[in-house]
Amino acid sequence: MSTKADLKFVRSLHQKKVREAEGLFLVQGPKLVGELLASGWPVRSLYATADMAAQLRLNDAEVLPAHELDRLGTLENGNSVVAVVERPSPSSFAPLGTDELVLALDGVADPGNLGTVLRIADWFGIARVLCDRASVEVFNPKCVQASMGAVFRVAVHYVDLAGVLERERAAGATLYIASMEGRSAFDLQLRRPAILVLGSESHGVSAPVRALRGETISVPRVGAAESLNVAMAASALCMEFTRQRTTP
Amino acid sequence: MSTKADLKFVRSLHQKKVREAEGLFLVQGPKLVGELLASGWPVRSLYATADMAAQLRLNDAEVLPAHELDRLGTLENGNSVVAVVERPSPSSFAPLGTDELVLALDGVADPGNLGTVLRIADWFGIARVLCDRASVEVFNPKCVQASMGAVFRVAVHYVDLAGVLERERAAGATLYIASMEGRSAFDLQLRRPAILVLGSESHGVSAPVRALRGETISVPRVGAAESLNVAMAASALCMEFTRQRTTP
Repeated sequence: MSTKADLKFVRSLHQKKVREAEGLFLVQGPKLVGELLASGWPVRSLYATADMAAQLRLNDAEVLPAHELDRLGTLENGNSVVAVVERPSPSSFAPLGTDELVLALDGVADPGNLGTVLRIADWFGIARVLCDRASVEVFNPKCVQASMGAVFRVAVHYVDLAGVLERERAAGATLYIASMEGRSAFDLQLRRPAILVLGSESHGVSAPVRALRGETISVPRVGAAESLNVAMAASALCMEFTRQRTTP
Repeated sequence: MSTKADLKFVRSLHQKKVREAEGLFLVQGPKLVGELLASGWPVRSLYATADMAAQLRLNDAEVLPAHELDRLGTLENGNSVVAVVERPSPSSFAPLGTDELVLALDGVADPGNLGTVLRIADWFGIARVLCDRASVEVFNPKCVQASMGAVFRVAVHYVDLAGVLERERAAGATLYIASMEGRSAFDLQLRRPAILVLGSESHGVSAPVRALRGETISVPRVGAAESLNVAMAASALCMEFTRQRTTP
């Protein structure tokens, strides 16, 4: 049985600094909690309404009244189940496999965009994503929700991005830098191993990454839109990477 | 000079039923208002903080204190400029051009997803989008924002979707129905004129549309994700439609 202090602690995990200090984060809603349990990630504690505990057959969830759960989580449309989950310890970024494609995000600030990019990576079988250290935290609740569970399957590494890109290029990887002015993806023979770098919507990639002079790549524009967001660009470019790999 | 009742009227446009009854909608934020003015769509009234009115050189905006503007609009991070804009009268959906690709959305409920799909259409030069009548309203403020101005360039038609699809097929268009179990886009010779139909994330396309038995099409899945959202699928599929049209 949780005390008031316990529940206050769970609510404190809405804040990034507490999540980082405690090595914990929140997973919310039946769908995501289902993915969490399937993933085997270590759950510290689990709270649910009586209905949801019964529906998900959660025999070790603490049952709380709906209004308490609402306060516990961050979802706008109400919370019926909230898990406190241990974050994996950061691991170092191992060199690229021979045939690997890695996504790298440079300065992505929006948690929904990061979560959506993870979901795209997960769809296209991309196992690892690099982020520069200024990018948004992957365990932000909005990112976790937008990832639709990809956060449990795709490894995210926060690194000195220019340093890692330079090292991987020296080891044989091709760097592709997404840019509105880049060469059309259709005109490139996409090699692997490769890292596809996507910058922030507002600023593109940072100066140290630009200075590496990777190959630029773009989603060919036919119409009048000013830009594509990072997730839409990731989806379109991963589609072409996949096509070039799977169709002769 | 606006009266209290005038400002109350602007705020009432947060509601769909008022927007529809009055034939008006809101455009907010400097970027979107810039796109609005460039588009030439008829503006009924314009409100801004003194700073923003000066920055955008809006000589006919009514200047309001920041706290009033905050209440006037719907943006979470504060409003500095809000325009009340006339909606175009609905026009009938003209037959497809010889080489045209149209997107059709069936049961899309999330305004952010609709806005993002419009932005993708705009990028790939798709001038028209069909929505079934149950789809979310295009002039919802979240949709307008997510479209990043595409709402002014891409025409959205709310129609009896199965009826229009059937008529267009009879006139020679190919119907492509996006489906997780569909044929890989890479294995299809994508013909035009065509309509690419995307269903809602939760339910796919509706029974009447499924009954038309169009060609199924999918974004090939390499990894473990359960689904792609409608905007990511649109981006990936439009990429392949564009490739097949532009590369020999």
